[in-house]
Amino acid sequence: MDTQTSAQTGGRSGLERFFAPRSIAVIGASANPAKIGARPLAALKTNGYQGQIYPINPNYDTIGGLPCYPSAQAVPGPIDLAIVSLPAPLVPEALRDCAQKGVAYAVVFSAGFAEAGPEGAALQREIERIVAESTLQVLGPNTAGAVFHHTAMVASFASTFMSPPVHQGSGIAFITQSGAFGVYVYNLAQQLGLVFDYYINTGNEAGLEVADFLEYLADRSEVRAVALYLEQVRDGTRFRRAAERCFRRGIPVIAVKVGRSAEARRAALSHTGALTGAEDVYDAVFRQSGVVRVDGIMELLELLDLVVKNAMPRGRRAGILTSTGGGGAWMTDLCRQAGLEVPEFVGPTREALEAVLPQFAAASNPVDLTGQMYTQRDLFRRCIAILARDPAIDALVLLSGGDPETVGVGVPETVVEASQSSDKPLLVAWVGAPDWFYRKLGAAGVPAFRDPAHCARALGSAADYATRRRDSHALSPRRPADLGIPRLRETLRSRAGADGRLLEHAAKQFLAQAGIPTAETRLADSADDAVAQAVALGYPVVLKVESPDLLHRSEAGGVILDLDSADAVRSAYGTVLDRARHYAPHARDLRVTVQPMLSGGVELLVGLSRDPTFGPVLTVGLGGVAAEAMRDYTVRVPPIDRREAREMIAKLRGSALLTGFRGGPPADVEAVIGILERLSALAEGLGDLLLELDINPLVVFAAGGGAVVADALVVIEAESP
Amino acid sequence: MDTQTSAQTGGRSGLERFFAPRSIAVIGASANPAKIGARPLAALKTNGYQGQIYPINPNYDTIGGLPCYPSAQAVPGPIDLAIVSLPAPLVPEALRDCAQKGVAYAVVFSAGFAEAGPEGAALQREIERIVAESTLQVLGPNTAGAVFHHTAMVASFASTFMSPPVHQGSGIAFITQSGAFGVYVYNLAQQLGLVFDYYINTGNEAGLEVADFLEYLADRSEVRAVALYLEQVRDGTRFRRAAERCFRRGIPVIAVKVGRSAEARRAALSHTGALTGAEDVYDAVFRQSGVVRVDGIMELLELLDLVVKNAMPRGRRAGILTSTGGGGAWMTDLCRQAGLEVPEFVGPTREALEAVLPQFAAASNPVDLTGQMYTQRDLFRRCIAILARDPAIDALVLLSGGDPETVGVGVPETVVEASQSSDKPLLVAWVGAPDWFYRKLGAAGVPAFRDPAHCARALGSAADYATRRRDSHALSPRRPADLGIPRLRETLRSRAGADGRLLEHAAKQFLAQAGIPTAETRLADSADDAVAQAVALGYPVVLKVESPDLLHRSEAGGVILDLDSADAVRSAYGTVLDRARHYAPHARDLRVTVQPMLSGGVELLVGLSRDPTFGPVLTVGLGGVAAEAMRDYTVRVPPIDRREAREMIAKLRGSALLTGFRGGPPADVEAVIGILERLSALAEGLGDLLLELDINPLVVFAAGGGAVVADALVVIEAESP
Repeated sequence: MDTQTSAQTGGRSGLERFFAPRSIAVIGASANPAKIGARPLAALKTNGYQGQIYPINPNYDTIGGLPCYPSAQAVPGPIDLAIVSLPAPLVPEALRDCAQKGVAYAVVFSAGFAEAGPEGAALQREIERIVAESTLQVLGPNTAGAVFHHTAMVASFASTFMSPPVHQGSGIAFITQSGAFGVYVYNLAQQLGLVFDYYINTGNEAGLEVADFLEYLADRSEVRAVALYLEQVRDGTRFRRAAERCFRRGIPVIAVKVGRSAEARRAALSHTGALTGAEDVYDAVFRQSGVVRVDGIMELLELLDLVVKNAMPRGRRAGILTSTGGGGAWMTDLCRQAGLEVPEFVGPTREALEAVLPQFAAASNPVDLTGQMYTQRDLFRRCIAILARDPAIDALVLLSGGDPETVGVGVPETVVEASQSSDKPLLVAWVGAPDWFYRKLGAAGVPAFRDPAHCARALGSAADYATRRRDSHALSPRRPADLGIPRLRETLRSRAGADGRLLEHAAKQFLAQAGIPTAETRLADSADDAVAQAVALGYPVVLKVESPDLLHRSEAGGVILDLDSADAVRSAYGTVLDRARHYAPHARDLRVTVQPMLSGGVELLVGLSRDPTFGPVLTVGLGGVAAEAMRDYTVRVPPIDRREAREMIAKLRGSALLTGFRGGPPADVEAVIGILERLSALAEGLGDLLLELDINPLVVFAAGGGAVVADALVVIEAESP
Repeated sequence: MDTQTSAQTGGRSGLERFFAPRSIAVIGASANPAKIGARPLAALKTNGYQGQIYPINPNYDTIGGLPCYPSAQAVPGPIDLAIVSLPAPLVPEALRDCAQKGVAYAVVFSAGFAEAGPEGAALQREIERIVAESTLQVLGPNTAGAVFHHTAMVASFASTFMSPPVHQGSGIAFITQSGAFGVYVYNLAQQLGLVFDYYINTGNEAGLEVADFLEYLADRSEVRAVALYLEQVRDGTRFRRAAERCFRRGIPVIAVKVGRSAEARRAALSHTGALTGAEDVYDAVFRQSGVVRVDGIMELLELLDLVVKNAMPRGRRAGILTSTGGGGAWMTDLCRQAGLEVPEFVGPTREALEAVLPQFAAASNPVDLTGQMYTQRDLFRRCIAILARDPAIDALVLLSGGDPETVGVGVPETVVEASQSSDKPLLVAWVGAPDWFYRKLGAAGVPAFRDPAHCARALGSAADYATRRRDSHALSPRRPADLGIPRLRETLRSRAGADGRLLEHAAKQFLAQAGIPTAETRLADSADDAVAQAVALGYPVVLKVESPDLLHRSEAGGVILDLDSADAVRSAYGTVLDRARHYAPHARDLRVTVQPMLSGGVELLVGLSRDPTFGPVLTVGLGGVAAEAMRDYTVRVPPIDRREAREMIAKLRGSALLTGFRGGPPADVEAVIGILERLSALAEGLGDLLLELDINPLVVFAAGGGAVVADALVVIEAESP
């Protein structure tokens, strides 16, 4: 699969050589320390880079004691990596020089490309051409560069990399689409004791993009987590595949994504297409590929810290120890808000706690040891040991506060020992201790927080990740049903109008062919024919008018429900046609359909649409105007399996309607799951052909009664002439 | 009004003397520094308390050089405040001693009361009796005490108060219902440079409670903000009144409230009663009385910091300056998520920016100055000056990062000067600077954040507060309509069943009497009578059966809609009665009502219920089972005005349904507002009599068409025999 991926992306091999280059050329190297071109030379030196360094600049013979060359091709030995620090107009020529020399990688600092108007964009297209026509791979332009501390590969001009990091080996890689902001985050992390081993700024992504690095890092044994600062993913499919690979290998990918507030919606013909925003799709992709989306830098770093400290829990169940009842109650609150469980202790744990706890303390969760937590170190240790043994607890949380030196003797040591004696993570939320306390715990591998809210949030996200990974192991492999895709393609092409639309009658035929139950829908040529069809279908029936020129037939009054006699059908036949003609006087191909009236079910809206980055998007929501006004829907990106389909339904705010609300029977959720799975397989099989598919409503009957499409619309890519 | 409040709460005067006592007695004083009873003596001394100190303990003649007395009554001079540090069983006697002595206030440290089982609860009731029967006011028991730094009144045993604070005068008062956790928070704040002037732990609240202190602090000129750590409010009305007083006086009250995850719902007969959780009511009370609810300690402290630094904005519009385009985009995102606006610059601001900005930077919001922000200090200063002049901007945000010493010369000085030159708040989100930078800005009064997310969140909350205050100035005074409350009371009493319920027919009569439009609803004695009534009302009509024993008549099939002929009515008459008898064979007083069929409107659910703490609660939600399943409703606590009523509707997730959704006409929101106002006045006027009122549905027609009650239920407090 990796080979295939490499082949698909233009024969790129891994980036081993990029991060461990034997030789680095600096094109535009300068002897003037004030110039950007002087910085990589200085950085490579101070960081202790061991390979060959070749300054390239026709104006110098030597720079900093190193022989200087007029061009890449003039360098005697091979060049693995070229750093390009030149004015934008000179960059393409330098890259051509590199390509001819057989340089493997170039990092282009220079700005003035796609970010800087049409001229720059033209220059960037030149770079893209060079990349396409050679084996040279390019990071940038407009990048602050890339750094890998293990090999002292510092291809960056950022001040922060001019001296070696205080320590390394965190196992954290950081890929950022913003150069300067990425450096700020790198700095903050360093201050908090987290040195990122990798810093990668992808800049304008004329060549290498986020997915390339994510893909590479997924297979690196030293990588324990990847932090992302994302503005926009370029190749959605590759990004998703790379993220999934990290997920499968247990490397958490934690992302800050700019754009949550963006409200751009796609113009779409269908309901579902119009419903889903681009950020919904990002959220779905992140969720499905195991990427944890966070909203702030502290949230990012605190979660990374849990990874680095081996403090990721196996599940959601927190056992809380506290020195304050009030604080313990709040911690419970915060944990629950963060999606954690705070289960009561039972069985041996309860008994063991009862045996060690003094009279004032109850063996309940949280365990409130009051101020005696500090003075009776043994009590604290024993409680930790008991909770650590409980198979019904996944993580321990200690909530306390005050000056640890004032409240008792050896508090940090006791906490560290307790943590080391437990194979479950122990997180410490300690309010109001001096700095040294957090540093001391941190240095000993115990995650320590000043704010209980941050502690609960980090643990909640970590538990989320753990649970998703656990569930993913339980998955049966995805096996799309054999839908007969070629035949379905044929149906779509033959029944679509010139605008690519299949109206209800045709759309339902297509869906039925794909194995999705639809309400039988018959065309009626006349009022008499309508009555005959109604008799054949059985009363009550629904009459609808359709025409390629009638987009909003409900608003036009072109649908009449619940007709229960021949007279009613006859009269309705004339009415819907009249109304359609009144609403859209020039509507072509007006036709009337007759179908059985479906009643007594819950109505859903189910659809497929297309996201420009990630391709097909599957949406489900409750039907009806109220649910639509409340924007109650969930989104996933195919392929999905039964578990995901079930979750799509469960995550609806109004999902209670499907599980037996106010005494009603539970609805046939299994039938809906089957349809969602089938639609997912359809979307995959039909690829770019299918633009939008709208089932509105899908009527879901009581459990065992199935679900039936009552109305549908399909839009395909109109054939190019 | 204050006099009245004092009178209502048992003649309590303000707490001036509590916080500025001329003399303090320590009952249970100890010479042994390891004992709790030694601590207040030590603390009063080290903090420099200037009044008289009287140790009280029959076992000593002197303690720490002070003469010691056997009882409060044995003390020669008056005692303003007594600190009680005795075993619980000895406390009542000590308090009686105090009461007889005429001591004004007692602070009871001792635990072992209501928090410790039935025996302790009995002891606490004894304290409550003493409070009721004397002029002694009690803080506690089970309290860590109270502190006011301005007078060195340190009535606490917490270690943190044993030495005087490094500085004071923040103007922040902190009231906490958790003693230990409150101290932790106090410590953390101190570390971040915020010394709370007041620390007040209310403990078990046998006497003084949170509202007492809130009320007092509202009138203190030195108080600039109140921080609350709340578990449960005791007297909802007084709390609300005190919070509103703070709000009117521009003293922000910022609360952490435990209990968000609590899912307790009240048992209720009506829909709305069952819908609303206790935390919804807290949220409503907070919102209406201007209390800002926060979820974490850092969030609390960061917002307090804005108050202390005079950095509260006047509105929601943020102007952003940044050194990084990527970071600026994210800051925009974060601001919008936090409810702020990031408006484009127009007019003179735009022109002025265009005149000073270099070519690379656009005069848009955020202004991206790139790294030149650091090197061109004048550019930065000019931009700040331009934005500071713009009347369309309420606050300035600077987003940057890195080591301020590396990136440029005099960066913090420039920022501080810029801040001082602007009369709008300037908030700095600086990622990755060393500690000294934040301290330096902080010391100069510039709020500085490490995480842009925290900065946006604090500014968003502050803007929320500012906007609410601005809107509250624009209010017309609340003037409940003259509803004829005595007559309405009479109707309720005379029409309610033994269980306090008024069924639909009676409930509608009551509502009509209160001036709320209802669908005319007539009783029918027979099928023929039903037809006659239907003819009189006009077809189509609805038939409903009612009986005090038929709670779920819809589920029983006891409602038939849309009857459009005499035959249909006649047949429905029998059907609803049959169904009712089948569903509830022993149902008494079965009656059938006839009313006009209301169609074409949007259905709302509107109701009043009773919260045990805060009294009447007004709820509005969208009607229909889908909306109910989605729990889409808003809650307010009467009295409300038109603005609040409008907001109740606007805050519904599905409010789009009322403003003309999918081409429909906008609904008569004004009519709904009128009804909500009237219900609010009703709730106020009827006081404890009204337990629940359920209008379900209220049918709202197109603008100008009004809103009509289609069904209703009322429950009143059953009369005591």
